[in-house]
Amino acid sequence: MHTGVFTSPVEHFHKLNMDVDQPTLMEGGQYIMEGEEEAKSTTLIFSMTEEVGALANALKIFQAHNVNLLHIESRPSRREAKYEFMVECDSTSGDLGAAMEEMRASCSYFQVISRNHLDNKDTVPWFPRKIADLDRFANQILSYGSELDADHPGFTDPIYRERRKFFADIAYFYRHNQEIPRIDYTEEEVATWGNVFRNLTKLYKTHACKEHNMVFPLLIENCGYREDNIPQLQDVSNFLKDCTGFTLRPVAGLLSSRDFLAGLAFRVFHSTQYIRHPSMPLYTPEPDICHELLGHAPLLADPSFAQFSQEIGLASLGAPDEFIEKLATCYWFTVEYGICRQDGKNKAYGAGLLSSFGELEYCLTDKPELRCFDPAKTCVQKYPITEYQPVYYVAESFEDAKQKLIQFATSIPRPFSVRYNPYTQSVEILNSKPQIEALVREINCDMQVLMDALLKLT
Amino acid sequence: MHTGVFTSPVEHFHKLNMDVDQPTLMEGGQYIMEGEEEAKSTTLIFSMTEEVGALANALKIFQAHNVNLLHIESRPSRREAKYEFMVECDSTSGDLGAAMEEMRASCSYFQVISRNHLDNKDTVPWFPRKIADLDRFANQILSYGSELDADHPGFTDPIYRERRKFFADIAYFYRHNQEIPRIDYTEEEVATWGNVFRNLTKLYKTHACKEHNMVFPLLIENCGYREDNIPQLQDVSNFLKDCTGFTLRPVAGLLSSRDFLAGLAFRVFHSTQYIRHPSMPLYTPEPDICHELLGHAPLLADPSFAQFSQEIGLASLGAPDEFIEKLATCYWFTVEYGICRQDGKNKAYGAGLLSSFGELEYCLTDKPELRCFDPAKTCVQKYPITEYQPVYYVAESFEDAKQKLIQFATSIPRPFSVRYNPYTQSVEILNSKPQIEALVREINCDMQVLMDALLKLT
Amino acid sequence: MHTGVFTSPVEHFHKLNMDVDQPTLMEGGQYIMEGEEEAKSTTLIFSMTEEVGALANALKIFQAHNVNLLHIESRPSRREAKYEFMVECDSTSGDLGAAMEEMRASCSYFQVISRNHLDNKDTVPWFPRKIADLDRFANQILSYGSELDADHPGFTDPIYRERRKFFADIAYFYRHNQEIPRIDYTEEEVATWGNVFRNLTKLYKTHACKEHNMVFPLLIENCGYREDNIPQLQDVSNFLKDCTGFTLRPVAGLLSSRDFLAGLAFRVFHSTQYIRHPSMPLYTPEPDICHELLGHAPLLADPSFAQFSQEIGLASLGAPDEFIEKLATCYWFTVEYGICRQDGKNKAYGAGLLSSFGELEYCLTDKPELRCFDPAKTCVQKYPITEYQPVYYVAESFEDAKQKLIQFATSIPRPFSVRYNPYTQSVEILNSKPQIEALVREINCDMQVLMDALLKLT
Amino acid sequence: MHTGVFTSPVEHFHKLNMDVDQPTLMEGGQYIMEGEEEAKSTTLIFSMTEEVGALANALKIFQAHNVNLLHIESRPSRREAKYEFMVECDSTSGDLGAAMEEMRASCSYFQVISRNHLDNKDTVPWFPRKIADLDRFANQILSYGSELDADHPGFTDPIYRERRKFFADIAYFYRHNQEIPRIDYTEEEVATWGNVFRNLTKLYKTHACKEHNMVFPLLIENCGYREDNIPQLQDVSNFLKDCTGFTLRPVAGLLSSRDFLAGLAFRVFHSTQYIRHPSMPLYTPEPDICHELLGHAPLLADPSFAQFSQEIGLASLGAPDEFIEKLATCYWFTVEYGICRQDGKNKAYGAGLLSSFGELEYCLTDKPELRCFDPAKTCVQKYPITEYQPVYYVAESFEDAKQKLIQFATSIPRPFSVRYNPYTQSVEILNSKPQIEALVREINCDMQVLMDALLKLT
Repeated sequence: MHTGVFTSPVEHFHKLNMDVDQPTLMEGGQYIMEGEEEAKSTTLIFSMTEEVGALANALKIFQAHNVNLLHIESRPSRREAKYEFMVECDSTSGDLGAAMEEMRASCSYFQVISRNHLDNKDTVPWFPRKIADLDRFANQILSYGSELDADHPGFTDPIYRERRKFFADIAYFYRHNQEIPRIDYTEEEVATWGNVFRNLTKLYKTHACKEHNMVFPLLIENCGYREDNIPQLQDVSNFLKDCTGFTLRPVAGLLSSRDFLAGLAFRVFHSTQYIRHPSMPLYTPEPDICHELLGHAPLLADPSFAQFSQEIGLASLGAPDEFIEKLATCYWFTVEYGICRQDGKNKAYGAGLLSSFGELEYCLTDKPELRCFDPAKTCVQKYPITEYQPVYYVAESFEDAKQKLIQFATSIPRPFSVRYNPYTQSVEILNSKPQIEALVREINCDMQVLMDALLKLT
Repeated sequence: MHTGVFTSPVEHFHKLNMDVDQPTLMEGGQYIMEGEEEAKSTTLIFSMTEEVGALANALKIFQAHNVNLLHIESRPSRREAKYEFMVECDSTSGDLGAAMEEMRASCSYFQVISRNHLDNKDTVPWFPRKIADLDRFANQILSYGSELDADHPGFTDPIYRERRKFFADIAYFYRHNQEIPRIDYTEEEVATWGNVFRNLTKLYKTHACKEHNMVFPLLIENCGYREDNIPQLQDVSNFLKDCTGFTLRPVAGLLSSRDFLAGLAFRVFHSTQYIRHPSMPLYTPEPDICHELLGHAPLLADPSFAQFSQEIGLASLGAPDEFIEKLATCYWFTVEYGICRQDGKNKAYGAGLLSSFGELEYCLTDKPELRCFDPAKTCVQKYPITEYQPVYYVAESFEDAKQKLIQFATSIPRPFSVRYNPYTQSVEILNSKPQIEALVREINCDMQVLMDALLKLT
Repeated sequence: MHTGVFTSPVEHFHKLNMDVDQPTLMEGGQYIMEGEEEAKSTTLIFSMTEEVGALANALKIFQAHNVNLLHIESRPSRREAKYEFMVECDSTSGDLGAAMEEMRASCSYFQVISRNHLDNKDTVPWFPRKIADLDRFANQILSYGSELDADHPGFTDPIYRERRKFFADIAYFYRHNQEIPRIDYTEEEVATWGNVFRNLTKLYKTHACKEHNMVFPLLIENCGYREDNIPQLQDVSNFLKDCTGFTLRPVAGLLSSRDFLAGLAFRVFHSTQYIRHPSMPLYTPEPDICHELLGHAPLLADPSFAQFSQEIGLASLGAPDEFIEKLATCYWFTVEYGICRQDGKNKAYGAGLLSSFGELEYCLTDKPELRCFDPAKTCVQKYPITEYQPVYYVAESFEDAKQKLIQFATSIPRPFSVRYNPYTQSVEILNSKPQIEALVREINCDMQVLMDALLKLT
Repeated sequence: MHTGVFTSPVEHFHKLNMDVDQPTLMEGGQYIMEGEEEAKSTTLIFSMTEEVGALANALKIFQAHNVNLLHIESRPSRREAKYEFMVECDSTSGDLGAAMEEMRASCSYFQVISRNHLDNKDTVPWFPRKIADLDRFANQILSYGSELDADHPGFTDPIYRERRKFFADIAYFYRHNQEIPRIDYTEEEVATWGNVFRNLTKLYKTHACKEHNMVFPLLIENCGYREDNIPQLQDVSNFLKDCTGFTLRPVAGLLSSRDFLAGLAFRVFHSTQYIRHPSMPLYTPEPDICHELLGHAPLLADPSFAQFSQEIGLASLGAPDEFIEKLATCYWFTVEYGICRQDGKNKAYGAGLLSSFGELEYCLTDKPELRCFDPAKTCVQKYPITEYQPVYYVAESFEDAKQKLIQFATSIPRPFSVRYNPYTQSVEILNSKPQIEALVREINCDMQVLMDALLKLT
C-alpha cells in the first residue's frame, strides 16, 4: 500500500477531468446554479472611439441586442487618454455575438475574455483581473469538499463527511478581505496533526531545503506550529503576507488547474482547512491542512520561491488550454515535487515531498531518476498520482527556475503580456505603447533607487 | 477677510507647533496617556551574530537591563541568511542605553529607530515600517478633532463640536483593514457640500488640470459624487485602490508633518470625514471632507501623481527634522497648491486650489508670481496660510516633478535607502548587498516583461 | 585692453556668420569648388519594398530623373529583414525632387538628410553617420586658417600667415584614421607656449577643477607636456583614446556650429595645431594649440565629462537650426566657460577659462554673476565674445549636467532618436521597433554584467 | 577518405598541443627569441596607497629587487580618485616575487596577470587589456605558417611552402591599426577559390542560415566576392567594421585557444590569408582564406552573432585553463559547427559547415545526432577533428545562445567581472563599487534613450 502520496488540486483535476474549465455538476442545489451562470459570463474590456456619452452609447448597444449585463465598471484607461469600461455580460442572454460585433466597430480598444472561449475565436480564456475576482472561483469548484470517492478513507464515516461539509461551506461563503474563520479543531484532529508533525520534523534537517529549515522556527514562534496545535490559516496567512505578500484563501473543493494557477498570479494560495481521516494519518488522497501548512506554507515565505510561484500563475492567465496543462505539469514537478541543488547536495522543496514522510525519504535515495528542470521538457512529462514519482526534476536555484519559467512563458501564444500591479492588486493587460512607456519609467525609478542604495553601501 | 483658504494637516501643523513630533496635550483622559507612551517607544531591528538561541539571548539582555518590550517580531532577514528581529521597547523603562550597547556588540545588524531620536545619536527618527504601523498615529495627533480655535466658525456651536467629537472618535478607534464607517450626513451637512460642489464644478473645465477632469466623471459614476450626496470615504477609497492603490484612512485631528507624510509612503492618505461649519460654506480654516474629496481624491486616482505623492512620503522616512519641514513645504507647493503646464496653459492640480472657489480663480490670473518647481529652491520658500498664495510653483508634468523630487531626496542624509514593497505593504530599509542584488534581479524581471511586451506590440 | 579671451570655433562662428551652414566663400581655388559641391549633396537612406533587384530598381529611378549619384552603400537593415541603402546624390543634377517622390513610393523605409534641408520639407539637416564622414568637414570650413581679420595680431606678419597656411593645409588634407603629422615647432613658437604654460600652471591647483588637476600630471608623464615642449596632437589623441575614446582631429579653420558639435557625437574633437602670434602671448582672438591642449584636452580624459560632451554632440545631429544655436550656447557655457561646484567651492572646468590666465582668476572672484546650469535657460543667454563673461553657469557635477542635457535634448523636435554605436563608430537612427528591441536586449546584457559584478564585489 | 573537414585554429591547437599557452619552438631565429621573452612577462596593475610620488616610489621597489620593466603606463583609475599604473615586468629578471610582495603592501589596488600564472597563485592568467596588446600574439604562435605536417597536401611542394612563408611573414610583422597588405593572388590560387566558391554557393540557399544568405549578396556587392576573385581581407574587414565593429587581423600560424578566444573579446577575428593546396581544392587540414571568407565573415556581419562571439571571448579572459578548453569546445560546436533552428527547419551557421561542401550537405541529413545547445553540457563533449561530426548542437537563436553563454560564464571562477569598453577598445576589470556605479549610470542613460525612442515610435 502506498502511504503519504498527496495529490494537489492541480493534479487531482487531471485525474478527474480533462476538460479544463468545465465544472462537474454538484449536489447541493443552490451552489450549482451559481456555478453554471458563472461559466456563462463573458467579460468585455473596451474604450469607445467617441468619448462623449461613451458608456451610455455602449449600454444602448447591449440593450438593443437584449444582452443582460451583470456588472459594469469604469476606470481611466492606461492605454490612451480615455475611459476604459469593463462589462460582464450574461452570455446566454440576447445576441451577444451581434452586440460584440457592433461594439467592436465603435471601440478604439476591445478585448473579450470569456469562460466560453472555445466557442468564440478572437476571445481569450477568462481570467481574474482583480484579486476580488477570485471570489468567482468559490462556485467553480470541480468537486465539492464533502463529496468523497468510494476509496477515500472517510467515505463511510458520516461524521467525517459532515465535518468536511462544514469546512467546504466556510470556504464557499468566504469572500476576499475577510478574516478566515478560526477553527476549534477536535482532539482527534489535533492528534492526527501531531502524528504527521512529529514524523516529518524528524526528517527536515537532513532532507528539506535550507529555505524550509530557515522558516520553520519562525512558524513555530509566530504561528503556533506545534505538535499539539493545528495552526490557524489566518495566522499563517498574516505571516506570509509580511514575508512575501502571499495570502491563503480557503477553498471549498477542487479547482480547475486554470483557476488554481490564476490564484498564484495574485500571490493567493488556495488552501484546504480540513484534515485527513484519522484512520490513516500518514496517508491522504488529496491535499489537507498538513500538506498545506507543512509542505507549502514554509516555502511561500521565501521571496524567490514566491516570485517563482507567481510567475507560473502569471504565465497561465489567458493561456490556451494545452499550455494550462503544461504549466500545471511544471507546477507539479516544482511546487509539489521539486528537488533543488544546495551546497552540492539534493534537497526537497516540493510540498508533496515535504508533507509525505515516505516520499521525502525515498526522493533523495538513488531509486528515482533525477533530471534538470527545463520547463520546455518538464512540461510534457507524464507522472503517476497514486505512487511515488519515478522522475524528479532538479532546480539549480529558485532564481534559475524562475528565469527558465519566464523564458518558457514567452512561448505561450497570447496577444498581450501581463503584469501584476501589487498596488491595485490587479493584473494589467499589457498591449499598448503608453503602458510600455509607463513600465520603462518604473524601471527608471528602480534604477535610481539602485543607484542611491549603491552609493550608500559602505 | 479670508475666503476659502484651506489649510492642510501639514500646513496647519506648521502654524500650531514647530516642534516636530512633540504632541500637544489633549483633553479627554484616556487618549492622552496612550499618546504619551507611544512617543516613548523605540524600535530595534537586529540580527544576532550567533544564530542558535538568538532571540532568547537577546531577551536576556533586555531583561538584565529591566527594559520592557512592547512587541516582538521575527522574520527571515533580507540582508543575510539569518533571522531578523524587530523589538519595540518602552524607552522609559530600565536602562535602554546600556541594553542597546550590549545588543550592538552581539549583533551582525543593528538599527534603532526612535521617536526620541534627538536624545540618541546613531538613531534614526521613528517611522512606520508596515502599513499596520499607521495605527500608531491615531493617538499621536497634535490637536484632537473636537478642539477648535477661538476664531473657528464653529467655536461657539455646541452641536457642531459634538459632531466633530463623533467624527474624531471614529478615526481614533479605526484600525488598518477595517471598513471606514459609513456616515449618515445631516441635511444641513449635505446642503453645505452641495453649495461647495455646485460652485467648484463650474470652474473645473477651465481651471483644473486634465487629470482632474478625466477622473471627475468616474467619481460621479462610481462613488456617488453629486450635489445632493456626500460620498462615503470607503467608496472613494475603494475606487482609488483600484486606480492606483491609494487608500483613505480617517484621521482624528492634526498629524505632525512627519506622520502625515509617512502615510503617503504607503499610499495611504489621511482624510478628514467631517464637513466645515454651515455658517461659512465657502470657507474653512482646516481640511474637511470637501477639501479631501474634491481636491485630493481625483488626483490620487492618477498613476503619475500617486507615484509623485508616494515619493514625497518615502523621502520623509527617517529624514532629519529640517528635511521633514523641507518636504512638507514641497508638499504644500505641489499636492496642496501646485500648478502645472498643460498644452501651453497653466492649470491647477493642488487640492487647496481645487477645493477653493476663490483661490482657484485667482491662481490662474496674472496676480500671483509663478516659478518653476525645483525642490531644492521650493523647499525653503516661506508661505502664508491665511491668505491666497503670492507665489505658486509650476510643474512641467507629474513625471518631471517626480524625477526632480527623487533627485532632491538623494540629498537627504540617511544611512540607507528605502523602498516600498507593495506585496508586503512594508518599507524595506535598503543597506546591504543582498538586497541590492535582489533589486537588480527584480529590475531584470521587469526588463523581460518589457521585452515580451515590446515583441507583442503590433 | 582685453587679454586672453579665447574664442572657440563655436563662438567665433556666431560672430562671423549667423547663417548656419552657409559656408563663406574662400580664397584658394580648388578648395572652394569642393566645398560648394559638398553643400549640394543630399543623402538618402532607404529600404525597398520589393527586395529582389532592389538596388538595381532604385538606380533606374535616379537614372530616369538624371540624378548623379556620388556614393552608394548597401548594408543589412536594423529596422527590418531587408537591405538598407545609403545613396548620396548631387542635388544640383537632374530632378531630384521627382526622383525622391518616386523612390518614396517604392520604399518601406525612406529618410532624407540634406545640407539643403531648408529647401526640402520632410528633410532632416545633414549630419555625419560614420566617423569617416567627418572628412567632409575639411572643405566645409567657414574661414580658412590663413585668412586673418584685420585686427588679428598676425595680420601684417607674412611669415606667420605662411605658417598658418602650412597648418591649414595639413588639416585640409587629413583623413580619418591617419596619423596627425608631427610638427617641428620653431623656437619662437615653443617660447610662446612656454610663456602660457608657465603662467597658467601657477593657477591650476587653486582654480582648476579636480578632474583637470588629476589628469595634468599624466599628460606631463605620457604626452610631453612641458614648458619647453609643445606636445604633439597625435600623442595627446592617443592618450585620450585610452582614457575615454576621444580623439583629436586637426581642423583647417572655423567649422560651423553644426559641424563642430557633430564631431563630439563621435567623440572627435576638432583641434587647431598652430599657436598664437608671438607678439601677444597671453592673448588670442581664436582657439590655438595652447587653448586646446591646456584647456580642452585634460577634461576630455575624464569619463563623465567625455560623456557630457558627446551628449551635446548627439543632441545636435539633425536638429533644427535654432536648436543648434541653443546647443552651441550650452557648449559655450559649459565646455568653454563652465564652472562647477566641488567640495563646497567653485572651480573652473571650461577650456576658455583654463587657458586664459586673466579670466581664470577673474571667474572665481565675486565680480561675475553665477547661475545654476539649466540647459533650458542657459541656452538662450546672450554672451560677449571679446571680453570676460559677465555671467557663468555652475554645474553640480558632470553627471548632473549630463542628466539635464539629456532631458533638454528630448525637447528637440526630431523624428527619431539617435544612438552612437562605438563598435561601428557610426550613429544609429533609432526609429523602429526592432532597434528598440535590440536596445532592450543590450540593456539586459549590461544588467547581467552588473549582477555578476555585484556578486563578485567583496 | 576525409573530404573537406576544416579545422579551426582552436581545434587544431587541441590536436597539437594540450599544454595551453606553452609555445612550440619555431624555426627562424629572431622570432623565437621574442616569443620566449613574451611568455615570461608579467603585468602588474596597481594604485599606490600614497599618491604623492606614487610612480617614483614604485619604480624604486622594482629597482631594489633588480626587476626589469618592459613597459610603464599611467592612467586615471576608475576604482578610486587615484592613478592606476600598468607595469610590465620581465619575470626572469631579479626577484619579482619579493618585489610583488613589497608592492602589495604599498598598494590600495594590486592585480597581477601573468603568462606564468600557474607558478604564481593569486595571479590571473595573462590576457590583453587593450586592442593593441593583440600585437603580442604575433610571436606567440604555436606553429609557424610555413611548417607543414608530413600528411599536408603541400608538404612536398617547395613553392607552396615558400608562399606560406610569405603569408606568415605578413602576419608576423602586422601591427594593430595598419592596413592589411593586399595580395596579388596567383591564377592557380584564384582557380582553387573559384572551385570552392562555385560548389558552396549552390548549397547556401537551402542549407545556410538566413543571416548568411542575407549578408552574402552584400559581400558580393561591397567586397568583391566572385568566383574569379579572392576578396582582400582589408575590404572584408572594413565591411564588417561597418556592420558590427568586427575586424580581421592576419595571423601567422596557430594561436593557442586562450589567445584566439581573447581576440574575440575585442571583436577581432584572427584570419588566415593563404589558400589551400591546389591539389585538393575541396579539402584542407587547417583554416584557409576560403574557410574564413565563406564560413566566418558572413556571420560576423550579423549583430547578434557578433555579440555571441564576443561573449565567448570575454568569458575566456583570465579564465583558468580548464575553462579555456570548455569555452573552446563551445566555440567549436557553435561558431565552427553550429546548427540553428529557423522557421521550423535546421540550418547551418558554423563556419566549418558553411565552408565544407561535403559536411554542409551531411549535417542536415538524419545521420548525425542533434542536441540542444547547452553550454554546461556542450563544453565537455568530445569531438573528432578529421571526420564529419557525429553530434551537432542546435541553437534556438543567436540571442538564446548568447543568454545561455552569459549564464554559463558566471560559473567561471574569476575574482572580477570584465566588460569591454568599445570607446577605448580596452577591457575593463570590474571589481569596485565606483565602477559598478558608473555601469548603473550608463544603463540609466540607455534607459533614457530607450524612453525617448519609444516616445518617438509612431
